[in-house]
Amino acid sequence: MTNKWVFGIDIGGTTVKCGLFSEQGELVEKQEIPTRTEENGRYILQDIATYIRNTAQEKGFVLQDIKGVGIGVPGSVLRERIVNKCINLGWGVLDVCEAFAEVLPGVPIKVGNDANMAALGEYWKGAAAQFSSVMMVTVGTGVGGGLVLDGKVIGGVHGAAAEIGHLPLVAEDFGTCNCGKKGCLEQVASATGIVRVAKKYLVQEHAASVLDTKTDFSAKDVFDAAKMGDTLAVSVVEYVCMYLGKGLAGIAAVVDPECFLIGGGVSQAGEYFLEMIRKYYRIHAFHPSKETTILAATLGNDAGMYGAAKLVL
Amino acid sequence: MTNKWVFGIDIGGTTVKCGLFSEQGELVEKQEIPTRTEENGRYILQDIATYIRNTAQEKGFVLQDIKGVGIGVPGSVLRERIVNKCINLGWGVLDVCEAFAEVLPGVPIKVGNDANMAALGEYWKGAAAQFSSVMMVTVGTGVGGGLVLDGKVIGGVHGAAAEIGHLPLVAEDFGTCNCGKKGCLEQVASATGIVRVAKKYLVQEHAASVLDTKTDFSAKDVFDAAKMGDTLAVSVVEYVCMYLGKGLAGIAAVVDPECFLIGGGVSQAGEYFLEMIRKYYRIHAFHPSKETTILAATLGNDAGMYGAAKLVL
Repeated sequence: MTNKWVFGIDIGGTTVKCGLFSEQGELVEKQEIPTRTEENGRYILQDIATYIRNTAQEKGFVLQDIKGVGIGVPGSVLRERIVNKCINLGWGVLDVCEAFAEVLPGVPIKVGNDANMAALGEYWKGAAAQFSSVMMVTVGTGVGGGLVLDGKVIGGVHGAAAEIGHLPLVAEDFGTCNCGKKGCLEQVASATGIVRVAKKYLVQEHAASVLDTKTDFSAKDVFDAAKMGDTLAVSVVEYVCMYLGKGLAGIAAVVDPECFLIGGGVSQAGEYFLEMIRKYYRIHAFHPSKETTILAATLGNDAGMYGAAKLVL
Repeated sequence: MTNKWVFGIDIGGTTVKCGLFSEQGELVEKQEIPTRTEENGRYILQDIATYIRNTAQEKGFVLQDIKGVGIGVPGSVLRERIVNKCINLGWGVLDVCEAFAEVLPGVPIKVGNDANMAALGEYWKGAAAQFSSVMMVTVGTGVGGGLVLDGKVIGGVHGAAAEIGHLPLVAEDFGTCNCGKKGCLEQVASATGIVRVAKKYLVQEHAASVLDTKTDFSAKDVFDAAKMGDTLAVSVVEYVCMYLGKGLAGIAAVVDPECFLIGGGVSQAGEYFLEMIRKYYRIHAFHPSKETTILAATLGNDAGMYGAAKLVL
């Protein structure tokens, strides 16, 4: 069925997700190995090489049968090889292709940013599979994204394309973002941002809210309260989705993609969250793009592994 | 020197700019013909065909020697052929390739949006020639733009990419944009937008200003007054450039281009205007993109003609 094999590897801060794919693009098996971040992450590529050698042996093929290894990393990547600091892995500036050639010589590899790889994975095998272009927005601890236009990942000249969390949008003061700027979308729309907005509303609005009865709460608590009709929580979700909608509308005015995907932990809030984003997107989008599809991502944590494999297919 | 010829045609509301290019990309000659918008613009393509036939005859080549004709139009374009309303030309939905084949059969043509063509022209032969990607922002009667990434024009799935004037950015109320939305960048940063901001400042600030002595004034007057140190005019320019800087920073967070070009009538305000945009861009840009080059466009009204030629080269 296949003559060549492809590996899609997604390196995260705690585990490395590894997928073996046929040349036809079918996932044959997947496995997770721990990310050893000790000693500036020097064992990470070795561990991946060991996994690949073992897998090849098990499946009965040789390294020459590997068409390529795609690797997603949590940091910006230049020219599909140079990583410019992955703080979570302990890596500084690293030519991943060169470093990987030392531990697994002769196997072609390509490297991409993990958020871009997730977008490419969704474009290839996930929720965006029937679309020609996609902007994937990941709402989790931070707000990130990946952009694929006509099958091509748009990484940006400094590896900073699709850095949606840092769109300068928020007019109200919610303090300084980790990046040093004010007004970043992430300050209000990430999981911590949503809690930040809710806490400000609780102080300002003096309205009764189930959130007020808790000593601490999460973004999920805010959504749960909003779904139950808690007025203050609804206001918070509306405010957050207003900015997410504006962000998506701004993205549409730049690249006009065929669809948006919403992924990340906060997207677990489901259709309620999506419908609220759609509402504000339609208010703020330029009319030719008003009906652009907004969907939930479907591959979850496997998206990056799929995208990494696609990078070398 | 050349075996084949290329035409770059830029259709504007009053004139059609026509350029004859060698296959090597040299502009051999250019000419303007009037845009006959009467009867829903039905003569426009005929006039272009006549110009092409005449030019071929003069230069001593036949239609078979034409490698292609690129046409820029003031409206959105799908699949490099379908125009979806060009109000200034009187056109509704029109398959320009089909219509052109009736007046000049057998000559390959491609169609693009004029702002995208201008960006492509600057990318090919203008201020962005040494860069791998460019976002061109045109500040004139409106605020428009064109985006070229790695030589490819990004048109968008609805032909609405690079519609920078409709970025939803402005927090203060400056009324409703022609597009029906509020908060569009164009409401404050176009030539009329700048005057709109100045008039609001004159009413609100009660500050003495040379602008107050005029019964009416233009964006140029605002810049001239600011350059002379008029405090109110400086505030207006700072405000406008703050939003332009935010707009460019937002674009960088989506596609992270290697350079920005500023064109259009208002860009005549020169280095003073550019430097003010750079200042606010650096404040609002995400750090990997902070040093992105911001330059003036250099091809002026010829940019669209160059870009249209490049489309078929």
